Amino acid sequence: MKKYYIGIDLGGTFIKGGVVDSDGNILVCDKTPTESELGGGKVASNIATLAERLLQTSGVSKAQIVGIGVGSPGMIDSAKGEVVFSGNLQWTHFPIAKETEKRIGIPVKLANDANVAALGETKFGCGKAYNNTIFITLGTGVGGGIVIDGKLFEGNRSAGAELGHAVLMVGGEQCTCGRKGCFEAYASATALIRDTKRAMLADKGCKMWEIGGLEAVTGKTPFDYYDTDASAKSVVDRYITMLGAGITNLANEFRPEAIILGGGVCAQGDTLLKPLQEILDKELFAGEKGPQVKLLIATLGNNAGLLGAAALWM
Amino acid sequence: MKKYYIGIDLGGTFIKGGVVDSDGNILVCDKTPTESELGGGKVASNIATLAERLLQTSGVSKAQIVGIGVGSPGMIDSAKGEVVFSGNLQWTHFPIAKETEKRIGIPVKLANDANVAALGETKFGCGKAYNNTIFITLGTGVGGGIVIDGKLFEGNRSAGAELGHAVLMVGGEQCTCGRKGCFEAYASATALIRDTKRAMLADKGCKMWEIGGLEAVTGKTPFDYYDTDASAKSVVDRYITMLGAGITNLANEFRPEAIILGGGVCAQGDTLLKPLQEILDKELFAGEKGPQVKLLIATLGNNAGLLGAAALWM
Repeated sequence: MKKYYIGIDLGGTFIKGGVVDSDGNILVCDKTPTESELGGGKVASNIATLAERLLQTSGVSKAQIVGIGVGSPGMIDSAKGEVVFSGNLQWTHFPIAKETEKRIGIPVKLANDANVAALGETKFGCGKAYNNTIFITLGTGVGGGIVIDGKLFEGNRSAGAELGHAVLMVGGEQCTCGRKGCFEAYASATALIRDTKRAMLADKGCKMWEIGGLEAVTGKTPFDYYDTDASAKSVVDRYITMLGAGITNLANEFRPEAIILGGGVCAQGDTLLKPLQEILDKELFAGEKGPQVKLLIATLGNNAGLLGAAALWM
Repeated sequence: MKKYYIGIDLGGTFIKGGVVDSDGNILVCDKTPTESELGGGKVASNIATLAERLLQTSGVSKAQIVGIGVGSPGMIDSAKGEVVFSGNLQWTHFPIAKETEKRIGIPVKLANDANVAALGETKFGCGKAYNNTIFITLGTGVGGGIVIDGKLFEGNRSAGAELGHAVLMVGGEQCTCGRKGCFEAYASATALIRDTKRAMLADKGCKMWEIGGLEAVTGKTPFDYYDTDASAKSVVDRYITMLGAGITNLANEFRPEAIILGGGVCAQGDTLLKPLQEILDKELFAGEKGPQVKLLIATLGNNAGLLGAAALWM
């Protein structure tokens, strides 16, 4: 009897789920509203209902499912299967794994959403060739995950891998976590947009004003004007310097085989990757004497979470 | 038949060794000159001769020894038992484990000296109560080691855990590794002495001049004048800020149960520890919602390396 897994990507608005085989093929996938405003029990029921529907659609029986993996936002205690707290879901110490298990009769494992994405990209995405990777998402914030010997490394009570919250510049930009100068405060898309707006305000003649105004700025803006506008170029160059510093820090501390970048900014492809790899190669501890660290761009997109959640059982 | 271990602390000048039991008791210990200028083979012979002598003195038979653990300076490849390179020993790709094994007929494991010290402090020193720790030595440089689930985490080909070489201040103080602004460039004893001298030069009336002159400055100097001299106070306060930032970074990334500090600066005890723990408690990601990280001062002193090397076999 062939074995399968259910991966659940629990978001603030939608729950996405899929039936996955051990090669990372998604047989079927579907989604349903989260409805966290109706309480944790309702969310657990929604996950269970979605899972039942996935089984029906796929024709896979409950007995063939090894387990359900859930990737959730917030601080997680994997061992307890509990969301310690999540602003997004508005939960404190909610045992979502047990509550879901009760409703569907399949064992449930839980981990943080950025962590499971790291596992997904490593097992089935661009990191397939590696067992030791770090995944960094450059989005509203900077999240990430660490894979050591093919398994998630989450730190004590799963509270580690807060990769965006290491200071790169003591006393620097205010971070959402309360500290000043965090990696996130320089390398997130939010930081890139902030710096682009600042550069525009400081340079009224800058070409980036063509886009219409400050409210039209996205993470793409400074890249679009990189070749034609000095202010745009300086924003991007600075962004790459800071991102490169943060990546090199992680490389020196963890020395993974590869570091995988995800998030919207990565649409810039080699424009981003090439100078970052140069910084990393130049600044990596012991340079060429030690093992190199390969920089990669994530390939699974939104499916990384679902696949990684399923991979919690592999 | 009771089992024992031999721990070897391989230094640039001396090789220290001891016979250790599984509780971390050192039955006998001794040392011999390294003589690395006579080549790697000679060093391997010196280790073997020292080990034979330790067996004789202790009355432990070769058959009772599970293995020899060696802690060596430089970049190590543990899996190969090879010193990839070491400025101290002047070696490149020297297979010290195999060479020693050949001479004594006991299996040899090798790891970096700061890494084995981390293991020693965790298994037998102040970290005994914990399985997940980070050890940071504040000496000429900033070294360290990472223990996860009671085992050393060394990164790909043992090249990780370069904890001193994460940038805290992009573009900051020049570091020995080539980067600018590393943790080491702010938190080493060398950095503390540099900053004390700078403060004295900038303040000719400062009380620290009483010690005789710049050449008399040690890491203790600014602490000694902390209560009576504003320049000394500002050096120490800044040192603690930077050290606290580096510690909190590691806490957010690895979330260990405890972080252990070693090195001469730690003689300051609570003067150092208390404000650092305050910074950590305040800046740790998710504050009190997540598991706390305990700061400790190393207790094994010079024996940490020897015990940790032995613990490579436990």
